[in-house]
Amino acid sequence: MKLAQTRVLRDPIHGYIHIDQQVIWDLIDSKEFQRLRRIHQLGGVSMVYHCAEHTRFSHSLGVYELARRMMSEVDEIAQSLSAKQKIAGLCAALLHDLGHGPFSHCFERFSHIHHEDLTKAIILDPKSEVHQILDQEDLDLAQYVVDILNHQSDCPLLEEMISSQLDCDRMDYLLRDAYMTGTTYGKFDLERILRVLRVQDGHLCVKRSGTHAVEDYIMARYQMYWQVYLHPDAAGYESMILTFLNAFQNYCAKHSEYVRLYDFECLHQDGFDLKAFNRLDDFSLLMQIEKAQDLDDEVIAPLCKAILSRRLPDWKSCQNKEEGEKWISKLTLTHPFEQALCQVMKTEAGEYRPYFESEHNQIRILDGDTCIPLSQCSDVAQALLNMKNPKQWRVYFPKQRFFTQEKTA
Amino acid sequence: MKLAQTRVLRDPIHGYIHIDQQVIWDLIDSKEFQRLRRIHQLGGVSMVYHCAEHTRFSHSLGVYELARRMMSEVDEIAQSLSAKQKIAGLCAALLHDLGHGPFSHCFERFSHIHHEDLTKAIILDPKSEVHQILDQEDLDLAQYVVDILNHQSDCPLLEEMISSQLDCDRMDYLLRDAYMTGTTYGKFDLERILRVLRVQDGHLCVKRSGTHAVEDYIMARYQMYWQVYLHPDAAGYESMILTFLNAFQNYCAKHSEYVRLYDFECLHQDGFDLKAFNRLDDFSLLMQIEKAQDLDDEVIAPLCKAILSRRLPDWKSCQNKEEGEKWISKLTLTHPFEQALCQVMKTEAGEYRPYFESEHNQIRILDGDTCIPLSQCSDVAQALLNMKNPKQWRVYFPKQRFFTQEKTA
Amino acid sequence: MKLAQTRVLRDPIHGYIHIDQQVIWDLIDSKEFQRLRRIHQLGGVSMVYHCAEHTRFSHSLGVYELARRMMSEVDEIAQSLSAKQKIAGLCAALLHDLGHGPFSHCFERFSHIHHEDLTKAIILDPKSEVHQILDQEDLDLAQYVVDILNHQSDCPLLEEMISSQLDCDRMDYLLRDAYMTGTTYGKFDLERILRVLRVQDGHLCVKRSGTHAVEDYIMARYQMYWQVYLHPDAAGYESMILTFLNAFQNYCAKHSEYVRLYDFECLHQDGFDLKAFNRLDDFSLLMQIEKAQDLDDEVIAPLCKAILSRRLPDWKSCQNKEEGEKWISKLTLTHPFEQALCQVMKTEAGEYRPYFESEHNQIRILDGDTCIPLSQCSDVAQALLNMKNPKQWRVYFPKQRFFTQEKTA
Amino acid sequence: MKLAQTRVLRDPIHGYIHIDQQVIWDLIDSKEFQRLRRIHQLGGVSMVYHCAEHTRFSHSLGVYELARRMMSEVDEIAQSLSAKQKIAGLCAALLHDLGHGPFSHCFERFSHIHHEDLTKAIILDPKSEVHQILDQEDLDLAQYVVDILNHQSDCPLLEEMISSQLDCDRMDYLLRDAYMTGTTYGKFDLERILRVLRVQDGHLCVKRSGTHAVEDYIMARYQMYWQVYLHPDAAGYESMILTFLNAFQNYCAKHSEYVRLYDFECLHQDGFDLKAFNRLDDFSLLMQIEKAQDLDDEVIAPLCKAILSRRLPDWKSCQNKEEGEKWISKLTLTHPFEQALCQVMKTEAGEYRPYFESEHNQIRILDGDTCIPLSQCSDVAQALLNMKNPKQWRVYFPKQRFFTQEKTA
Repeated sequence: MKLAQTRVLRDPIHGYIHIDQQVIWDLIDSKEFQRLRRIHQLGGVSMVYHCAEHTRFSHSLGVYELARRMMSEVDEIAQSLSAKQKIAGLCAALLHDLGHGPFSHCFERFSHIHHEDLTKAIILDPKSEVHQILDQEDLDLAQYVVDILNHQSDCPLLEEMISSQLDCDRMDYLLRDAYMTGTTYGKFDLERILRVLRVQDGHLCVKRSGTHAVEDYIMARYQMYWQVYLHPDAAGYESMILTFLNAFQNYCAKHSEYVRLYDFECLHQDGFDLKAFNRLDDFSLLMQIEKAQDLDDEVIAPLCKAILSRRLPDWKSCQNKEEGEKWISKLTLTHPFEQALCQVMKTEAGEYRPYFESEHNQIRILDGDTCIPLSQCSDVAQALLNMKNPKQWRVYFPKQRFFTQEKTA
Repeated sequence: MKLAQTRVLRDPIHGYIHIDQQVIWDLIDSKEFQRLRRIHQLGGVSMVYHCAEHTRFSHSLGVYELARRMMSEVDEIAQSLSAKQKIAGLCAALLHDLGHGPFSHCFERFSHIHHEDLTKAIILDPKSEVHQILDQEDLDLAQYVVDILNHQSDCPLLEEMISSQLDCDRMDYLLRDAYMTGTTYGKFDLERILRVLRVQDGHLCVKRSGTHAVEDYIMARYQMYWQVYLHPDAAGYESMILTFLNAFQNYCAKHSEYVRLYDFECLHQDGFDLKAFNRLDDFSLLMQIEKAQDLDDEVIAPLCKAILSRRLPDWKSCQNKEEGEKWISKLTLTHPFEQALCQVMKTEAGEYRPYFESEHNQIRILDGDTCIPLSQCSDVAQALLNMKNPKQWRVYFPKQRFFTQEKTA
Repeated sequence: MKLAQTRVLRDPIHGYIHIDQQVIWDLIDSKEFQRLRRIHQLGGVSMVYHCAEHTRFSHSLGVYELARRMMSEVDEIAQSLSAKQKIAGLCAALLHDLGHGPFSHCFERFSHIHHEDLTKAIILDPKSEVHQILDQEDLDLAQYVVDILNHQSDCPLLEEMISSQLDCDRMDYLLRDAYMTGTTYGKFDLERILRVLRVQDGHLCVKRSGTHAVEDYIMARYQMYWQVYLHPDAAGYESMILTFLNAFQNYCAKHSEYVRLYDFECLHQDGFDLKAFNRLDDFSLLMQIEKAQDLDDEVIAPLCKAILSRRLPDWKSCQNKEEGEKWISKLTLTHPFEQALCQVMKTEAGEYRPYFESEHNQIRILDGDTCIPLSQCSDVAQALLNMKNPKQWRVYFPKQRFFTQEKTA
Repeated sequence: MKLAQTRVLRDPIHGYIHIDQQVIWDLIDSKEFQRLRRIHQLGGVSMVYHCAEHTRFSHSLGVYELARRMMSEVDEIAQSLSAKQKIAGLCAALLHDLGHGPFSHCFERFSHIHHEDLTKAIILDPKSEVHQILDQEDLDLAQYVVDILNHQSDCPLLEEMISSQLDCDRMDYLLRDAYMTGTTYGKFDLERILRVLRVQDGHLCVKRSGTHAVEDYIMARYQMYWQVYLHPDAAGYESMILTFLNAFQNYCAKHSEYVRLYDFECLHQDGFDLKAFNRLDDFSLLMQIEKAQDLDDEVIAPLCKAILSRRLPDWKSCQNKEEGEKWISKLTLTHPFEQALCQVMKTEAGEYRPYFESEHNQIRILDGDTCIPLSQCSDVAQALLNMKNPKQWRVYFPKQRFFTQEKTA
């Protein structure tokens, strides 16, 4: 159902978010979507870039807005999609991050459940407000949205708009994270890209004359990965959060009388407990950490203090796991908390490759009537594909200064 | 003590925050300052401007940076201050917001304690990390910082730099809030203002040729007050928070067995409990609200749900309190929760006057060798002083749509 | 005729200029419109703000783009205008500045012909490319465009969109001039204004909730007038240009053998000589000034050198004409060139009033079903109307330093 | 000599240009430097990007400002240079573009004299104001400035600051051209680069941690070359200018009675005629073109009209010269003007390589105590070095539409 008049939300990245469908307006006001106000977009990165305090709530609105613009401004997309497909695509864009837990990727490493699976569980859960709102619009809609997110729908175009190497998700987060961190690296020429998008054989592709704009976008990704997303101190902070989650789980297992704030393990168990999940967010986890400062545990108590006062571990690069472990073994660490901070971490190649190509995942360039992979017409893309695998090991260990303070405090 | 090398923090408003004093670096890492990461700068405004999720942490860094720039770039300020005064001024700029509670002004209205008094209590409390760090630098420093914030120091210039009608605090928050909300209204010509600042008889003033730049700044304040700070929906959200705090206090008084997350009343009682205060922030209050959804109370439970899903009350303007109350009395409200949402609110003139003049609080323009109040040489300022008192009454009441949903849910 | 596909021109103010009508595309390529590339937008202001080197060409494209956006994005405007009216309005927006001569307002003061009259003469001249292109589209079009510019058409809405106190012309030049000078003063919230425009009884008006956005726009005008358009040094430079034009005219009258580059007097005489006019622009005037350095004339030669090397006269404020003339009379000026630089100038109130109201020229606010003048609902507008008349006198005279250099050179 | 107080010029790229030396202030007001107001920075590019109307005047101020910032903000540069070296460096930065002729590179191709040689000729010419001002400051200064520009001074650091692959010239023009064209491609993180510059063994280098910022800068160059500087339509326009210059030279040789506006051949002859050169600029060339419309020459007359109304030739890519010529030979071109528009052009690799390395010209990265070339630590730089030579041929020929119009006109 169309709204009587278009409603707008002010947004520094897109100017305005435009909403003209009742179902979108209702989804925004749902409990599950409002929860995203309490999940920071960048987890530990805000410990390094202090202004990057924005949440998945505003990012999700941005992804929606980009999908909406593509559907109305790119003629070939507008003509390729039915009214029903458009609404499903907008819903999928809006809801794609619903399943993120506290400190997003941290929590995935703790729970071993991917946030995308939780997103789908919420959308399909008949008790969720999100599900009920989708049902009100159309009884098939919830399943269709999940199919799009699963890349199992009848419409590869929608799937690619929402999740591919040139999608609304990446486009919004690059622009938004660049704006909020105050770096210039993530900026690319969005308006130009919107002008060169095309549809060929049901797939999203780019007019050949837009190749340079796409190269610019890829390099923006490359820069943001190195400068922001993989910042060593952000990783150090997140590793402390993960260490806490594991240590606290053990503590609770041993001290069954201890009353936890929330059940952080709700997801490990059978079934999906929507109510418990709704209460898991950055805010509740930090509250638990605040409470756990008082525990009588020689790792947890100082760890919580360090997290809350941003006392990050030190780090250095190393060649491989062995070298990192050797470095740790040479340190004189007498306190268990010191030992808990030590860690050798690998930054996985996959995460920070600015571009790669597989059969189903590649940026397509429209060359005459057929599509070719970007690397066939871009020296820059080719160079990035050939780039030697930027695997990187780091060893983390206690910073002399803070450790001493903690010990004497 | 100077740091071996200047450290910088990236900031979208100022480019970089520059830190070259050990005491500033240590204060930033203190527990009490890190707590500001959990207090949003704009309270309920982020319910209207969804990107305005920034915190008092980044604002405080910005105020510090502006004070630092004034001290180094404005020659007359640089020459007017001793090394000790400079450090005290920087600390005061950094720490001035330390005492803000959850949802800042909401909490003041609940606790009836002004955040500035709490700021001073924290700085003077020998148990606070902040106090200990200041002591390490200089045993008089904590008291000097408090004197500056109290406007009782020997240096009116520092006091005016940190709190006056043309101070680092307002300058940072206008620019930052404009940036984060995505509005253009708060922008003014900071670089020009820094170039026209002068010191005369120990007071901060502005070169006559800078009058237009100051007018521009005043109009930025005027616009931000109306468009952002006094937005009716933000006020509606904050009024729900205040209603919760009061209702919850009553509930706890009646149900002594109920275990609260945190002691929100810690400040009502004698003395100042630093540890309890450290735990009061936006995050912990929202957690308490999340928990309180489950209470068996016909006001608190639906109120908590409404807060968490952003179901704001409706409102309309009215001439005065009586008219507002009359409007409410005509509504058919059967449910206590509906009644709890009803409220007549006055937006106090004082808060949103973009400019006023009193003997000690005025923007001084340097005219030859003497200072005159801004209004004597600015038609715009004069016009704003003459503006008829923009007192404004609003009546809040349940929105039909959400109320119905809550009732049937 | 619609173009087969929309063409775009990159523009830093509007992102892209969108062109989808053949007639607009052809007009842009016409000789008379391309001439605007050689008329600077801000005349002498670029002598003060060195980056403000943009021309009436890019401004005219911007005015066109704003008119186009209003016609497509503001529903009530879209519905109020016929297809023919839309095209006429776009042409009028594009062509409104066609008649500007070299250094725009300077040349008007020399020729005593208003640029708007020349604009109309060009459009109606059957020999102009512009006229022929309009004819190709529709034989009535040229006259209709002139009627709109004359405020004598059947469509006040179009007239107000192109020339009123809230029109596409002012909106573009404020934003563009602010961007190019690097000042922030001219920025206002264009996107918001586009959202609150309405049509009532055939007139352009603004939704009441947009009042603040309009106040912001008015204050932007106020600031730009003082900081940019009326800058004393820009006026000083333009006054040298005017002095040259008059002195050179006298010289040519006395020396009939002298071959001028171009006939700057072509407009004084009977009839309108399109070909001669096409050759009058900033470039040709500066070339004439360059050539005239060699004339054996004790005013013209040093004046031309001063213009080309930007050796501006000095100035001071004065109360009135008499005071200014008295100041001049006290100077020891022996050289005719020195005397030629002396001048008392009044900045006319009319030009820099940020806002005024007359029956036909006022910003209309939609209040329920009727329109009220802005000042009835805006304290800021009311204050500006009441502002005491900012008449201002300045006396210009030779700068000691340059004069000495010229004399000894 | 220091100025009594720092003077500032507003600039949209750098905020303010700061001037605190008398010699710089005087140079800016010199006749030869003011001439740069009449040379567009981007020649024919403004025919494609209509806002790119800025001149070498503002660019030169920007290069000066960057050099000034490096000398005051980068400690190691500040300490490496004597007071005299600093002044010479600032003068060299300001004056480096003095020798550009009309449409810069066009004119070089016509005159076969490199603009850098003309820059030096002007600086060394005792009759130039620039020379006299430098002499007033210090009798060795003019020669020292030329030595720096020649890369033959005693100070490689200064030479590299002004002309190398990471110099003030490129940094300013990338930022300025991006701003003025409205593209985002030229933006890079200037503030970060200023923070990571170092001096090692008398050479400018970059701290290792700044590698990514330098990669970002290199990619900005790559993008700007392709999107802006080598735009095919800009090249088409410039080729028409060059065709005019050559055809007009022939015409004048044959028609000795024809009085040219200016002597465009002044530089071909023996000696350097400063006065004649001062009159060669974009403005005077366009005036000559305007006049030459009236010539009775079947190439020159229509060519001048096409230039003035921006009627650009059409173009297509081709593999090599032969293919291009073959294409031309197949066209039915009966009119000499049509033939004059035909041309096969090679875009030389050298010009648009975003990065290359030679012994003396490379970006140096500080790795411990030694410098390594950028490519040794940057996969991106390495990839760009390996990029297959982007030589590119294009064939230009008459656009059907315009040609027909001309013929029938």
